[in-house]
Amino acid sequence: MTQSDLPHFSRRISRLTSSLIRELLALTQQPGIISFAGGLPAEALMPPLSLEGVPPALRQYGTTDGEPGLREALSARLNAQGLACPAENVLITSGSQQGIDMVAKVFIDEGTPVLLEKPAYLAALQVYGLYGAAMQGVAVHPDGIDMDSLRAVCAAQRPVFLYINPSFQNPTGYSYSDARRRELAAFLDEQNIVLIEDNPYGELSYDAPQPAPVSAYLKSAPWVYLGSFSKIAVPAWRVGYLAADPRLAPVFRKIKQGTDLHTNRPGQWWCEQFLRDEAGLAAHLDRLRDYYRGQRDAMEAALNEHMADVAEWSAPQGGLFFWVRVHAVEDTRALLDEALARQVAYLPGEAFYPPGSGVCNAIRLSFSGVSRESLNEGVARLGALFREHRR
Amino acid sequence: MTQSDLPHFSRRISRLTSSLIRELLALTQQPGIISFAGGLPAEALMPPLSLEGVPPALRQYGTTDGEPGLREALSARLNAQGLACPAENVLITSGSQQGIDMVAKVFIDEGTPVLLEKPAYLAALQVYGLYGAAMQGVAVHPDGIDMDSLRAVCAAQRPVFLYINPSFQNPTGYSYSDARRRELAAFLDEQNIVLIEDNPYGELSYDAPQPAPVSAYLKSAPWVYLGSFSKIAVPAWRVGYLAADPRLAPVFRKIKQGTDLHTNRPGQWWCEQFLRDEAGLAAHLDRLRDYYRGQRDAMEAALNEHMADVAEWSAPQGGLFFWVRVHAVEDTRALLDEALARQVAYLPGEAFYPPGSGVCNAIRLSFSGVSRESLNEGVARLGALFREHRR
Repeated sequence: MTQSDLPHFSRRISRLTSSLIRELLALTQQPGIISFAGGLPAEALMPPLSLEGVPPALRQYGTTDGEPGLREALSARLNAQGLACPAENVLITSGSQQGIDMVAKVFIDEGTPVLLEKPAYLAALQVYGLYGAAMQGVAVHPDGIDMDSLRAVCAAQRPVFLYINPSFQNPTGYSYSDARRRELAAFLDEQNIVLIEDNPYGELSYDAPQPAPVSAYLKSAPWVYLGSFSKIAVPAWRVGYLAADPRLAPVFRKIKQGTDLHTNRPGQWWCEQFLRDEAGLAAHLDRLRDYYRGQRDAMEAALNEHMADVAEWSAPQGGLFFWVRVHAVEDTRALLDEALARQVAYLPGEAFYPPGSGVCNAIRLSFSGVSRESLNEGVARLGALFREHRR
Repeated sequence: MTQSDLPHFSRRISRLTSSLIRELLALTQQPGIISFAGGLPAEALMPPLSLEGVPPALRQYGTTDGEPGLREALSARLNAQGLACPAENVLITSGSQQGIDMVAKVFIDEGTPVLLEKPAYLAALQVYGLYGAAMQGVAVHPDGIDMDSLRAVCAAQRPVFLYINPSFQNPTGYSYSDARRRELAAFLDEQNIVLIEDNPYGELSYDAPQPAPVSAYLKSAPWVYLGSFSKIAVPAWRVGYLAADPRLAPVFRKIKQGTDLHTNRPGQWWCEQFLRDEAGLAAHLDRLRDYYRGQRDAMEAALNEHMADVAEWSAPQGGLFFWVRVHAVEDTRALLDEALARQVAYLPGEAFYPPGSGVCNAIRLSFSGVSRESLNEGVARLGALFREHRR
C-alpha cells in the first residue's frame, strides 16, 4: 500500500504533533546520564500495592461516575480546602489526563478560542491542539498569571475557557499568590469565562499549607477542577478526578461513559483506603514533603553554586520542577546534544510552548529522582556547558 | 446563571444522545424484577482479584503502549487464531470501549461516512454519533452481514470504515459464517475500506471453536481489531486491547497518549498472569462456556415453550444474548412499562438503532445473570404479555 492508499484519517490526525518530548525523553534515559529531564515522582516513596480485603463485587462493571465512597472522600477533602463540591459532582477519571481530554471534548470545536499559560503543561497543549483549539498563551510569573496580559487577550477575543496549573506549575514550579487567585477569580466572574483548574501538585507544598483552589474564589463563573493521585500515591493506578460546577458535572458524566465506561474499580478502592487512613495519609504526605523539600533545597544550592552567573530562576515552593532561564544562551534545545554528550539531561523550555513558537532559553529541571551527589554534579556540568556557550 | 449564560459547548455536546438505555436499565434494576435487560457477565465465575507478587516497579508511570509481557501474550493468542500481529502492534486500552473512542478520534470528522451493522452495538452508535459521523446501517442475519446491502451502500457512498461485531454480536448473538467472513474480507480488500472488528465475545463460543477473525482473511485492506478481558475475566479492571495493521498502529499509539497516558498497570499485570497460566485459563474458559451454554439452552427451551406463537429467534452459538423478533407486536418499547409492572424486564430493540429509526418489534434478552427457575418464569410472563397485546 502506497502513501496514497492510506486510509482517510480525521483532520485531528493531521494536527498530531511530533513526539519531540518522547524522543527527547528516550535520549535522556540512556544509562549513566544524570537526568533532570523526566517528571516522574519518586518511586521509593510510593505506598505498596495491595488488594487485601477488596470486596469480590468490585470485579463487576461499575458506574460511570466512580465508586461512591471514593467520591465522598474526595468531596470532603475539597470542602476542607474551601471548594464546596458535593460528591455527586465529583467524577472519577482515568488519571487527570483523561480530565484534560474530556475538557477538550466538551468545549473544543475547530477554531474554538482557549487560553493557556505561557509556558503551559505540555500534554494539555497537545490535547487542545489535537482538537483544533485556537490557543493563546498568557505569561505567568512566580506569583501567578499576568493579569494585564490576560485582560488584553480577553478584550481582543473572548476565550471559552482558561486552563491553568496555579499551584507549583509544570513546567515552571510557579504558584499563584492568594491575592492573584482572588483577582483572577473576580475577573473570570466578570467575564463569565470557564476556569479549568488542573492541580496535580497542590499537596506537594513545602513551605506553607497548600493554597486554596482558584475555583473556591469564584462566585458565578463555571469551573472544572482536575485532581490526581499520581503525585502523592501510585501513578500506575491511573485514578484521578474531575470536580465540577453543578452546571457542568452532568455533561462530563455523559462524556465519560462513551470514553471508557468507567475507571478501574480496584484502583478506586485502593485510593479510597489510602484517603480513609487519615493518620497514615498525613504521615505519608509529611514524608513526601520532607524528601522533596530536601531535594528542592539541594538543587537551589547547586544552582547558586554553579549557575548564578549564567541563569536566573525562582525557587519553587512546591512541586517537582525548577524553571531556569539561561540568559547566557539563546536556544537550549540546540545545546541538548552536547549536554547528553556530557552525561547530563534537561528538558528544553521550547517543549512547553505551542509548536512554532521559536527558540527558548529556558530549561526545566526536575529534582525528583536524582541522588544528592548526582544532583550537584549534574548542575555543575550544565553550568560549565552554558558558560562555554555564552553568547 | 440562566440557560443563556451556560458556557459555549462544542457541537459534540449537542449530539449527546439522551441516556435512554441508562434510564431503562435503572428501571429494570428494581428489586424483585426478573431482568433480562442487563448485559453483565456472571460475577460468580470471575477469578479472584489479587496483586500478590506484583513487582513494586509497577507503581510508577508506564508506557503508553502497555506492559510488554501482556502485549506479547496477546500477540501469541492472536497469532494462534490466525491473525498475524506482532506485539509491537498490540496496544493496551482502558477497556475495549476506549478502542471504540480512539477509532472515532482517528477516523471521524463531522460528516465522515461510516458503516455499522443494523442493529449495532449501542455504545459504538453513541460514540460515532457523538463525533458527528454520517452513520449507515447494513442488515445482519444469523449467518452474517448482508453482502448485497453492503455492496449497494458502498456503491452509493464509499465509507471510511465498517464497524462490526462478527462473533456473537451484541445485541443479536448472530455470528458470521466462515464463508461470509471470507467474502466480506475479499470485498473490503477490493474496496480498500478499513475494517473495525470488535470481538468481546469470541471466546464465549459454546458449540464449536471460536471463529477466525475477519481481519485474518484480509490481504490488503487496513484493519483494527478490538479485544477485551471483560467477558472472560474481570470487567472492573478496564483492560482491553487494540491490535492493528502496521499502517495504523503508530497513529493509535500517539492518540492513546493524550487520552489517558496509559492503562492501569496493576490490571495489566493481573491480566498477564491470567493469560500465562495456560492450564488454569483453559479450565476457566471451559467452566464459563459450560455455564453459559446451560443458560443459553434453558432460555431456548423457555422461548420454545412460551413464545413460539408470538416471536421468532435464532439461538446464538455464543455470547450472552437472544435477539427475539416479536411478530405479534409492533413496538416493544411501548410495552416495557407493562412488562415492568409484571416484574420482568428486557431491552427494547429500538436502543440498538440510530435515534429516530422508528419503532422496533425486537427485544434483547440476556441469559447471563438469571437463575434457571426465574428464567423460565420470566420468559413465560413475556409470552403472556405479548400474546395479550397481539396486534
